[in-house]
Amino acid sequence: MPTTDLNHLSASAIARKIAAGETTAVAVVEACLARIDEREETLRAWAFIDPELALAQARACDKAPATGPLHGVPLGVKDIIDTADMPTAMGSPIYAGRRPPTDAACVALTRAAGAIMLGKTVTTEFAGSFPGPTTNPYDATRSPGGSSSGSAAAVADLMAPAAFGTQTGSSILRPSSYCGVIGYKPTFGTYNIAGIKAAAQSLDTLGLHVRDLDDIQLLTSVLVNRPLKPLDAPGSAPAIGVCRTPLWDIALPETQAALEDAASRLAQAGANVPEVTAPACFDGLEDARIAINCYERSRHMVYEWRDHREALSGMFQTVMQTGLDMDYGDYVAAMRQTEDCRQAASAMFDGLDILLAPCVDGEAPEGLAYSGNPRLPGLWTAIRLPAISLPTHTGPNGLPVGVQLIGRYRDDDRLLSVAKWVLEKLGSPTLN
Amino acid sequence: MPTTDLNHLSASAIARKIAAGETTAVAVVEACLARIDEREETLRAWAFIDPELALAQARACDKAPATGPLHGVPLGVKDIIDTADMPTAMGSPIYAGRRPPTDAACVALTRAAGAIMLGKTVTTEFAGSFPGPTTNPYDATRSPGGSSSGSAAAVADLMAPAAFGTQTGSSILRPSSYCGVIGYKPTFGTYNIAGIKAAAQSLDTLGLHVRDLDDIQLLTSVLVNRPLKPLDAPGSAPAIGVCRTPLWDIALPETQAALEDAASRLAQAGANVPEVTAPACFDGLEDARIAINCYERSRHMVYEWRDHREALSGMFQTVMQTGLDMDYGDYVAAMRQTEDCRQAASAMFDGLDILLAPCVDGEAPEGLAYSGNPRLPGLWTAIRLPAISLPTHTGPNGLPVGVQLIGRYRDDDRLLSVAKWVLEKLGSPTLN
Repeated sequence: MPTTDLNHLSASAIARKIAAGETTAVAVVEACLARIDEREETLRAWAFIDPELALAQARACDKAPATGPLHGVPLGVKDIIDTADMPTAMGSPIYAGRRPPTDAACVALTRAAGAIMLGKTVTTEFAGSFPGPTTNPYDATRSPGGSSSGSAAAVADLMAPAAFGTQTGSSILRPSSYCGVIGYKPTFGTYNIAGIKAAAQSLDTLGLHVRDLDDIQLLTSVLVNRPLKPLDAPGSAPAIGVCRTPLWDIALPETQAALEDAASRLAQAGANVPEVTAPACFDGLEDARIAINCYERSRHMVYEWRDHREALSGMFQTVMQTGLDMDYGDYVAAMRQTEDCRQAASAMFDGLDILLAPCVDGEAPEGLAYSGNPRLPGLWTAIRLPAISLPTHTGPNGLPVGVQLIGRYRDDDRLLSVAKWVLEKLGSPTLN
Repeated sequence: MPTTDLNHLSASAIARKIAAGETTAVAVVEACLARIDEREETLRAWAFIDPELALAQARACDKAPATGPLHGVPLGVKDIIDTADMPTAMGSPIYAGRRPPTDAACVALTRAAGAIMLGKTVTTEFAGSFPGPTTNPYDATRSPGGSSSGSAAAVADLMAPAAFGTQTGSSILRPSSYCGVIGYKPTFGTYNIAGIKAAAQSLDTLGLHVRDLDDIQLLTSVLVNRPLKPLDAPGSAPAIGVCRTPLWDIALPETQAALEDAASRLAQAGANVPEVTAPACFDGLEDARIAINCYERSRHMVYEWRDHREALSGMFQTVMQTGLDMDYGDYVAAMRQTEDCRQAASAMFDGLDILLAPCVDGEAPEGLAYSGNPRLPGLWTAIRLPAISLPTHTGPNGLPVGVQLIGRYRDDDRLLSVAKWVLEKLGSPTLN
């Protein structure tokens, strides 16, 4: 493989090749930087990148013995995640150029295992709805989705093998689906979120954008401290409940078609794919999640609201005002609904390994002003279950369309294993 | 009341008097500063205090119309809580003099309602076990408890009417009990914790140290956004389950005596006080909490561990090493135990309003090196229930000893109301 293709490799493959002496961290970073140099003017995935800083980290790796399983692996870091050596601007002029005193937990943990922080990826304003400049890698006139816009786009565009994203509604799965990569939101609380600007703390979940499911396994082993084991698909065909959810009507035809096609082909491959109906409390669950989002947002962004209001977008000001006006009793009612749904959801998995559900509305929307509808992944974020989007389909314009797989609470291992089986059976138009 | 006694007032009384034109924010702050000037050399409750900055805030208050119900009320702020206009050093030389770019949510919210941030109160190192310099207001040779050492001591010593504390195990209730003030840890998640250095995010709870239960009501109305209603004791005698917990044996005689005396006198006052046995899963619950604490700590303090290890205390390094060595599976098992206990605990409240339990080990320990045993409040922190310590008793050395009241999940209002009844019946040797 020529050096210039090192940026096509997964994080796992990069780690293996460096460990085997087949390449160097510098060569890998140079390949990523070359790709960024070639494409960034169009893609605008990076909020901050200093090639010399990235190369300095790579040179340090190449000079020292490996400190962990990520030795020499470059990562993209969503720009709401603190980095001691790079600014963290959060997609807002309020924090332009601000350099935090410390690394966020996920940055420090992956650095300690040898990873290279390639740069900071564009986030929407404070991981909300107001978009950044990033374009969709498959069509620069369209949105990459948000809020982890730059992370999904950079991984899709072969600028980095993997990147950190965060999800409070659909902020990992939506851009992953629009950009044709894998998005992973673990069970709430799995990866430590210290050093990440809060959106809504009852919902905020750190996760990953990757092009290879094995990379989730690799990064998880470092982030949570467990031995790295190969990710194997299940030995026999799994049982996958098909849950169209109460929000089925907001899924565009391409998303509905992707779900139906996936269910049908997985059945042909031997899976048991019964239909699963969401419990009644799911009606209005996404409205409850949005209420929680607005309320919690407004509680912890009072400083920016009071001292820097003019620098907040109108879109963000609306969220803040909605939250500030919300009575505590309404917030508690919304929290109770999510708690009830969490309890009720476990019965949906009876006799099943995972659920299959619509992922996002459809293909990436036209223009950059609107980053898409958050509601379909939001349901599962609200109840804290692990979810993966797989880029298994395309829509009427040939753009990526994903499906969503959901696991039981804390049953991420089974979710990942079955996801591997699903991806093997369905294939992907965008991965390799 | 002479001006010099303004520092004896509760936050509620200060707010009322300023609103009525009976005093000014400057006069109140001057009274607090005078007390600090008089006593700080012995008490060492403040990590940072700039009298001119406090007075400037007070003068601004007195010049402007009230912006909220805390107009002119001075508050102490635990020094792991970010303040944009004061350093936040977290009890560690690593962060000495560090000035955060923003106010934490609780600071911004109370400022927006008119409060004055008097100064930063001493925390143990990163709200862990390694003590700060603060002494006990009742005996300077003894510990004030931790980790919210300065907040509890300053409120007890009449330097501030109220102060923010945080609790991951017993860090609000323990120093409150040792210092003879009221400590309140709300239901997990009630007050927004953005801008507060994490200890263990599954447990961290922001709360209050006060000398008057009404102040909890006042501050809560601002922090969560709800109308301020008077705090009334229940109309009829409540039902209070007496739960000695599986950790009864670690309670020193004075704590056991305080609980028995409280139960007996509350029964005489008409309360129904049946004995309540904790479910079997409570055995080992506190060990599970400590495991969660070590594991989560170690995940998010890797930056400090890697780049500033020599500046961490040996005590802290031990916690970090324990956490870093812990396998993810053990952490998940500990989390599952707390989740099981949360479910099982609700049955303990059947037919009851609240529980009465031992608060902390006993009187404040001698010396400053050991800040006391965290285990008794830790049980309830682990299962996220709201808890209040009331300084109702004294021990063999005449030092304060508290009792602990625990409410149902999200049933803080009833807890506060019954706490008022309990305090009326039992009285307090340290509050007025």
